[in-house]
Amino acid sequence: MKIACVLGPKFEDSEFREPHDAFRDAGHEVTVVGLEARSVLEGDKGKVRATVDKSFRDVKPDQFDALFIPGGSSPDKLRAHDEAVAFVKAFMRAGKPVFAICHAPQLLLTAEEYKDHRMTAWNTVQGDLKKAGANVVDQEVVVDRNLVTSRQPSDIPAFIKASLKVLEQIPARR
Amino acid sequence: MKIACVLGPKFEDSEFREPHDAFRDAGHEVTVVGLEARSVLEGDKGKVRATVDKSFRDVKPDQFDALFIPGGSSPDKLRAHDEAVAFVKAFMRAGKPVFAICHAPQLLLTAEEYKDHRMTAWNTVQGDLKKAGANVVDQEVVVDRNLVTSRQPSDIPAFIKASLKVLEQIPARR
Repeated sequence: MKIACVLGPKFEDSEFREPHDAFRDAGHEVTVVGLEARSVLEGDKGKVRATVDKSFRDVKPDQFDALFIPGGSSPDKLRAHDEAVAFVKAFMRAGKPVFAICHAPQLLLTAEEYKDHRMTAWNTVQGDLKKAGANVVDQEVVVDRNLVTSRQPSDIPAFIKASLKVLEQIPARR
Repeated sequence: MKIACVLGPKFEDSEFREPHDAFRDAGHEVTVVGLEARSVLEGDKGKVRATVDKSFRDVKPDQFDALFIPGGSSPDKLRAHDEAVAFVKAFMRAGKPVFAICHAPQLLLTAEEYKDHRMTAWNTVQGDLKKAGANVVDQEVVVDRNLVTSRQPSDIPAFIKASLKVLEQIPARR
Protein backbone atom coordinates (compact mmCIF):
# COMPACT_ATOMS: atom_id res chain seq x y z
CA MET A 1 0.00 0.00 0.00
CA LYS A 2 1.08 3.58 -0.62
CA ILE A 3 0.86 5.68 2.54
CA ALA A 4 1.19 9.47 2.70
CA CYS A 5 2.66 10.74 5.98
CA VAL A 6 1.90 14.45 6.46
CA LEU A 7 4.64 16.08 8.49
CA GLY A 8 5.48 19.59 9.71
CA PRO A 9 7.96 21.18 12.12
CA LYS A 10 8.37 19.77 15.65
CA PHE A 11 6.62 16.45 15.12
CA GLU A 12 6.74 14.05 18.08
CA ASP A 13 9.84 11.99 17.36
CA SER A 14 8.67 8.47 18.23
CA GLU A 15 5.15 9.01 16.87
CA PHE A 16 6.70 9.59 13.44
CA ARG A 17 9.62 7.16 13.50
CA GLU A 18 8.05 4.03 15.00
CA PRO A 19 4.86 3.75 12.90
CA HIS A 20 6.82 4.92 9.80
CA ASP A 21 9.34 2.11 10.21
CA ALA A 22 6.69 -0.48 11.09
CA PHE A 23 4.64 0.37 7.97
CA ARG A 24 7.77 0.15 5.80
CA ASP A 25 8.88 -3.11 7.41
CA ALA A 26 5.44 -4.57 6.67
CA GLY A 27 6.04 -3.86 2.96
CA HIS A 28 4.16 -0.56 2.58
CA GLU A 29 5.60 2.52 0.86
CA VAL A 30 5.61 5.68 3.00
CA THR A 31 5.97 9.12 1.36
CA VAL A 32 6.57 12.13 3.64
CA VAL A 33 4.39 14.99 2.40
CA GLY A 34 4.98 18.49 3.80
CA LEU A 35 5.01 22.19 3.08
CA GLU A 36 8.32 22.20 1.20
CA ALA A 37 9.91 19.31 -0.70
CA ARG A 38 13.45 18.37 0.38
CA SER A 39 13.19 20.40 3.60
CA VAL A 40 14.53 18.67 6.71
CA LEU A 41 12.24 18.62 9.75
CA GLU A 42 13.32 17.95 13.32
CA GLY A 43 11.31 16.25 16.04
CA ASP A 44 10.33 18.23 19.14
CA LYS A 45 12.62 16.02 21.27
CA GLY A 46 15.52 16.67 18.84
CA LYS A 47 16.06 12.92 18.40
CA VAL A 48 14.66 12.29 14.91
CA ARG A 49 15.05 14.12 11.60
CA ALA A 50 12.93 13.58 8.53
CA THR A 51 13.20 14.82 4.96
CA VAL A 52 10.03 15.92 3.18
CA ASP A 53 9.77 13.81 -0.01
CA LYS A 54 6.99 15.78 -1.69
CA SER A 55 5.18 19.04 -1.10
CA PHE A 56 1.38 19.20 -1.05
CA ARG A 57 1.64 20.82 -4.51
CA ASP A 58 3.59 17.83 -5.89
CA VAL A 59 1.06 15.12 -5.04
CA LYS A 60 -2.64 14.31 -5.14
CA PRO A 61 -4.54 12.32 -2.50
CA ASP A 62 -5.62 9.77 -5.15
CA GLN A 63 -1.96 8.69 -5.52
CA PHE A 64 -2.18 7.15 -2.03
CA ASP A 65 -4.12 4.36 -0.32
CA ALA A 66 -3.86 5.67 3.24
CA LEU A 67 -2.85 8.64 5.38
CA PHE A 68 -0.65 8.71 8.50
CA ILE A 69 -0.56 11.82 10.73
CA PRO A 70 2.07 11.89 13.52
CA GLY A 71 1.58 14.16 16.57
CA GLY A 72 3.60 16.84 18.37
CA SER A 73 3.39 20.44 17.18
CA SER A 74 3.32 19.26 13.55
CA PRO A 75 -0.49 18.99 13.15
CA ASP A 76 -1.11 22.52 14.48
CA LYS A 77 1.63 23.93 12.20
CA LEU A 78 0.17 22.10 9.18
CA ARG A 79 -3.47 23.05 9.79
CA ALA A 80 -2.58 26.73 9.35
CA HIS A 81 -2.14 25.87 5.64
CA ASP A 82 -5.20 25.29 3.44
CA GLU A 83 -3.40 22.78 1.20
CA ALA A 84 -2.62 20.53 4.19
CA VAL A 85 -6.21 20.71 5.45
CA ALA A 86 -7.60 19.93 1.97
CA PHE A 87 -5.20 16.97 1.62
CA VAL A 88 -6.37 15.42 4.91
CA LYS A 89 -10.02 16.12 4.13
CA ALA A 90 -9.75 14.22 0.80
CA PHE A 91 -8.73 10.97 2.56
CA MET A 92 -11.60 11.21 5.04
CA ARG A 93 -14.12 12.05 2.28
CA ALA A 94 -12.91 9.05 0.25
CA GLY A 95 -13.17 6.74 3.27
CA LYS A 96 -9.49 5.79 2.95
CA PRO A 97 -7.58 4.62 6.05
CA VAL A 98 -6.41 7.52 8.22
CA PHE A 99 -4.02 6.87 11.15
CA ALA A 100 -3.93 9.85 13.56
CA ILE A 101 -2.07 9.94 16.87
CA CYS A 102 -1.81 12.48 19.71
CA HIS A 103 -2.31 16.05 18.35
CA ALA A 104 -3.09 14.71 14.84
CA PRO A 105 -6.89 15.01 15.27
CA GLN A 106 -6.37 18.81 15.33
CA LEU A 107 -6.13 18.43 11.55
CA LEU A 108 -9.45 16.52 11.48
CA LEU A 109 -10.98 19.33 13.55
CA THR A 110 -9.86 22.08 11.16
CA ALA A 111 -10.83 19.91 8.15
CA GLU A 112 -14.35 19.54 9.63
CA GLU A 113 -13.93 15.74 9.59
CA TYR A 114 -14.62 14.80 13.20
CA LYS A 115 -18.39 14.33 13.44
CA ASP A 116 -18.91 10.94 11.77
CA HIS A 117 -16.31 8.91 13.67
CA ARG A 118 -15.67 7.82 17.23
CA MET A 119 -12.12 8.83 18.15
CA THR A 120 -9.48 9.57 20.74
CA ALA A 121 -6.59 12.09 20.84
CA TRP A 122 -4.03 13.72 23.13
CA ASN A 123 -5.64 14.71 26.44
CA THR A 124 -5.97 18.45 25.73
CA VAL A 125 -7.20 17.84 22.16
CA GLN A 126 -9.87 15.45 23.47
CA GLY A 127 -11.41 18.48 25.20
CA ASP A 128 -11.36 20.59 22.02
CA LEU A 129 -12.96 17.74 20.06
CA LYS A 130 -15.70 17.21 22.68
CA LYS A 131 -16.56 20.91 22.74
CA ALA A 132 -16.85 20.78 18.92
CA GLY A 133 -19.34 17.91 19.21
CA ALA A 134 -17.10 14.91 18.45
CA ASN A 135 -17.65 11.44 19.91
CA VAL A 136 -14.49 11.10 22.02
CA VAL A 137 -13.28 8.28 24.24
CA ASP A 138 -10.12 7.95 26.32
CA GLN A 139 -8.44 4.69 25.33
CA GLU A 140 -5.13 3.64 23.79
CA VAL A 141 -6.54 3.05 20.34
CA VAL A 142 -9.93 3.59 18.72
CA VAL A 143 -10.77 2.01 15.37
CA ASP A 144 -13.94 3.29 13.69
CA ARG A 145 -14.08 1.98 10.13
CA ASN A 146 -11.27 3.78 8.23
CA LEU A 147 -10.12 5.95 11.15
CA VAL A 148 -7.51 4.76 13.69
CA THR A 149 -6.68 7.17 16.54
CA SER A 150 -4.43 7.02 19.60
CA ARG A 151 -3.49 9.41 22.44
CA GLN A 152 0.25 9.47 23.10
CA PRO A 153 3.67 7.80 22.63
CA SER A 154 2.85 4.96 25.06
CA ASP A 155 -0.03 3.97 22.75
CA ILE A 156 2.26 3.50 19.72
CA PRO A 157 2.36 -0.34 19.77
CA ALA A 158 -1.46 -0.58 19.82
CA PHE A 159 -1.68 2.18 17.18
CA ILE A 160 0.68 0.34 14.82
CA LYS A 161 -1.08 -2.99 15.30
CA ALA A 162 -4.54 -1.55 14.62
CA SER A 163 -3.31 0.49 11.63
CA LEU A 164 -1.63 -2.52 9.99
CA LYS A 165 -4.82 -4.53 10.49
CA VAL A 166 -6.90 -1.86 8.72
CA LEU A 167 -4.37 -1.83 5.85
CA GLU A 168 -4.70 -5.62 5.50
CA GLN A 169 -8.45 -5.28 5.11
CA ILE A 170 -8.54 -2.86 2.18
CA PRO A 171 -8.18 -3.95 -1.45
CA ALA A 172 -4.95 -2.98 -3.24
CA ARG A 173 -5.05 0.23 -5.30
CA ARG A 174 -5.40 -0.25 -9.03
CA MET B 1 -0.71 46.16 39.98
CA LYS B 2 0.38 42.58 40.62
CA ILE B 3 0.26 40.49 37.43
CA ALA B 4 0.62 36.71 37.29
CA CYS B 5 2.18 35.43 34.05
CA VAL B 6 1.46 31.73 33.55
CA LEU B 7 4.28 30.12 31.60
CA GLY B 8 5.16 26.63 30.39
CA PRO B 9 7.72 25.05 28.05
CA LYS B 10 8.22 26.45 24.52
CA PHE B 11 6.42 29.76 25.00
CA GLU B 12 6.60 32.18 22.04
CA ASP B 13 9.68 34.25 22.85
CA SER B 14 8.48 37.76 21.96
CA GLU B 15 4.94 37.19 23.22
CA PHE B 16 6.40 36.63 26.68
CA ARG B 17 9.30 39.09 26.68
CA GLU B 18 7.74 42.20 25.16
CA PRO B 19 4.52 42.45 27.19
CA HIS B 20 6.40 41.29 30.33
CA ASP B 21 8.91 44.13 29.98
CA ALA B 22 6.26 46.69 29.03
CA PHE B 23 4.14 45.82 32.09
CA ARG B 24 7.19 46.06 34.36
CA ASP B 25 8.33 49.34 32.76
CA ALA B 26 4.86 50.75 33.42
CA GLY B 27 5.37 50.05 37.15
CA HIS B 28 3.51 46.76 37.48
CA GLU B 29 4.94 43.69 39.23
CA VAL B 30 5.01 40.52 37.10
CA THR B 31 5.37 37.09 38.75
CA VAL B 32 6.05 34.10 36.49
CA VAL B 33 3.87 31.21 37.67
CA GLY B 34 4.51 27.73 36.29
CA LEU B 35 4.56 24.02 37.00
CA GLU B 36 7.81 24.02 38.97
CA ALA B 37 9.33 26.94 40.93
CA ARG B 38 12.90 27.91 39.93
CA SER B 39 12.74 25.86 36.70
CA VAL B 40 14.13 27.61 33.63
CA LEU B 41 11.92 27.65 30.53
CA GLU B 42 13.09 28.32 26.99
CA GLY B 43 11.13 30.01 24.21
CA ASP B 44 10.26 28.03 21.08
CA LYS B 45 12.58 30.24 19.02
CA GLY B 46 15.41 29.62 21.52
CA LYS B 47 15.92 33.37 21.98
CA VAL B 48 14.42 34.00 25.42
CA ARG B 49 14.75 32.18 28.73
CA ALA B 50 12.55 32.69 31.77
CA THR B 51 12.73 31.45 35.33
CA VAL B 52 9.53 30.33 37.04
CA ASP B 53 9.17 32.45 40.22
CA LYS B 54 6.37 30.45 41.83
CA SER B 55 4.58 27.17 41.19
CA PHE B 56 0.79 26.99 41.04
CA ARG B 57 0.97 25.37 44.51
CA ASP B 58 2.87 28.37 45.93
CA VAL B 59 0.34 31.06 45.04
CA LYS B 60 -3.36 31.84 45.04
CA PRO B 61 -5.21 33.80 42.34
CA ASP B 62 -6.38 36.34 44.97
CA GLN B 63 -2.76 37.46 45.43
CA PHE B 64 -2.88 39.00 41.94
CA ASP B 65 -4.80 41.77 40.17
CA ALA B 66 -4.44 40.46 36.62
CA LEU B 67 -3.34 37.50 34.50
CA PHE B 68 -1.07 37.45 31.44
CA ILE B 69 -0.90 34.34 29.22
CA PRO B 70 1.81 34.29 26.48
CA GLY B 71 1.41 32.02 23.43
CA GLY B 72 3.51 29.36 21.68
CA SER B 73 3.28 25.75 22.86
CA SER B 74 3.12 26.93 26.49
CA PRO B 75 -0.71 27.17 26.79
CA ASP B 76 -1.26 23.64 25.44
CA LYS B 77 1.42 22.25 27.79
CA LEU B 78 -0.13 24.07 30.77
CA ARG B 79 -3.74 23.09 30.06
CA ALA B 80 -2.83 19.42 30.53
CA HIS B 81 -2.49 20.27 34.26
CA ASP B 82 -5.62 20.84 36.37
CA GLU B 83 -3.90 23.36 38.67
CA ALA B 84 -3.05 25.62 35.70
CA VAL B 85 -6.60 25.40 34.34
CA ALA B 86 -8.10 26.17 37.78
CA PHE B 87 -5.73 29.14 38.20
CA VAL B 88 -6.82 30.69 34.88
CA LYS B 89 -10.49 29.96 35.57
CA ALA B 90 -10.32 31.85 38.88
CA PHE B 91 -9.28 35.11 37.17
CA MET B 92 -12.07 34.85 34.61
CA ARG B 93 -14.66 33.98 37.31
CA ALA B 94 -13.54 37.00 39.36
CA GLY B 95 -13.74 39.31 36.33
CA LYS B 96 -10.07 40.29 36.75
CA PRO B 97 -8.10 41.47 33.72
CA VAL B 98 -6.84 38.58 31.56
CA PHE B 99 -4.39 39.24 28.70
CA ALA B 100 -4.20 36.28 26.30
CA ILE B 101 -2.26 36.20 23.03
CA CYS B 102 -1.90 33.66 20.20
CA HIS B 103 -2.41 30.09 21.54
CA ALA B 104 -3.30 31.42 25.03
CA PRO B 105 -7.09 31.09 24.51
CA GLN B 106 -6.54 27.29 24.46
CA LEU B 107 -6.39 27.68 28.24
CA LEU B 108 -9.72 29.56 28.21
CA LEU B 109 -11.18 26.74 26.11
CA THR B 110 -10.10 24.00 28.53
CA ALA B 111 -11.16 26.16 31.52
CA GLU B 112 -14.65 26.49 29.95
CA GLU B 113 -14.26 30.29 30.00
CA TYR B 114 -14.86 31.24 26.35
CA LYS B 115 -18.62 31.66 26.04
CA ASP B 116 -19.22 35.04 27.68
CA HIS B 117 -16.58 37.10 25.87
CA ARG B 118 -15.87 38.21 22.31
CA MET B 119 -12.29 37.21 21.50
CA THR B 120 -9.57 36.51 18.97
CA ALA B 121 -6.66 34.01 18.93
CA TRP B 122 -4.02 32.40 16.72
CA ASN B 123 -5.53 31.41 13.37
CA THR B 124 -5.85 27.66 14.08
CA VAL B 125 -7.18 28.25 17.60
CA GLN B 126 -9.84 30.62 16.23
CA GLY B 127 -11.30 27.58 14.45
CA ASP B 128 -11.32 25.46 17.63
CA LEU B 129 -13.01 28.30 19.55
CA LYS B 130 -15.67 28.82 16.86
CA LYS B 131 -16.51 25.10 16.78
CA ALA B 132 -16.89 25.22 20.59
CA GLY B 133 -19.40 28.08 20.24
CA ALA B 134 -17.21 31.10 21.05
CA ASN B 135 -17.75 34.57 19.59
CA VAL B 136 -14.54 34.93 17.56
CA VAL B 137 -13.30 37.77 15.36
CA ASP B 138 -10.07 38.11 13.38
CA GLN B 139 -8.44 41.39 14.41
CA GLU B 140 -5.18 42.48 16.03
CA VAL B 141 -6.69 43.07 19.44
CA VAL B 142 -10.12 42.47 20.98
CA VAL B 143 -11.07 44.06 24.30
CA ASP B 144 -14.25 42.72 25.91
CA ARG B 145 -14.52 44.06 29.46
CA ASN B 146 -11.73 42.28 31.43
CA LEU B 147 -10.48 40.12 28.55
CA VAL B 148 -7.83 41.32 26.06
CA THR B 149 -6.91 38.92 23.24
CA SER B 150 -4.58 39.10 20.24
CA ARG B 151 -3.55 36.72 17.43
CA GLN B 152 0.21 36.69 16.87
CA PRO B 153 3.60 38.40 17.42
CA SER B 154 2.82 41.23 14.97
CA ASP B 155 -0.13 42.19 17.21
CA ILE B 156 2.07 42.68 20.30
CA PRO B 157 2.15 46.52 20.25
CA ALA B 158 -1.67 46.73 20.10
CA PHE B 159 -1.93 43.97 22.72
CA ILE B 160 0.34 45.82 25.15
CA LYS B 161 -1.42 49.14 24.62
CA ALA B 162 -4.89 47.66 25.21
CA SER B 163 -3.72 45.64 28.24
CA LEU B 164 -2.11 48.67 29.91
CA LYS B 165 -5.31 50.64 29.33
CA VAL B 166 -7.40 47.95 31.06
CA LEU B 167 -4.94 47.95 34.00
CA GLU B 168 -5.32 51.73 34.33
CA GLN B 169 -9.07 51.36 34.61
CA ILE B 170 -9.20 48.95 37.54
CA PRO B 171 -8.96 50.04 41.17
CA ALA B 172 -5.76 49.10 43.05
CA ARG B 173 -5.92 45.91 45.12
CA ARG B 174 -6.36 46.40 48.84
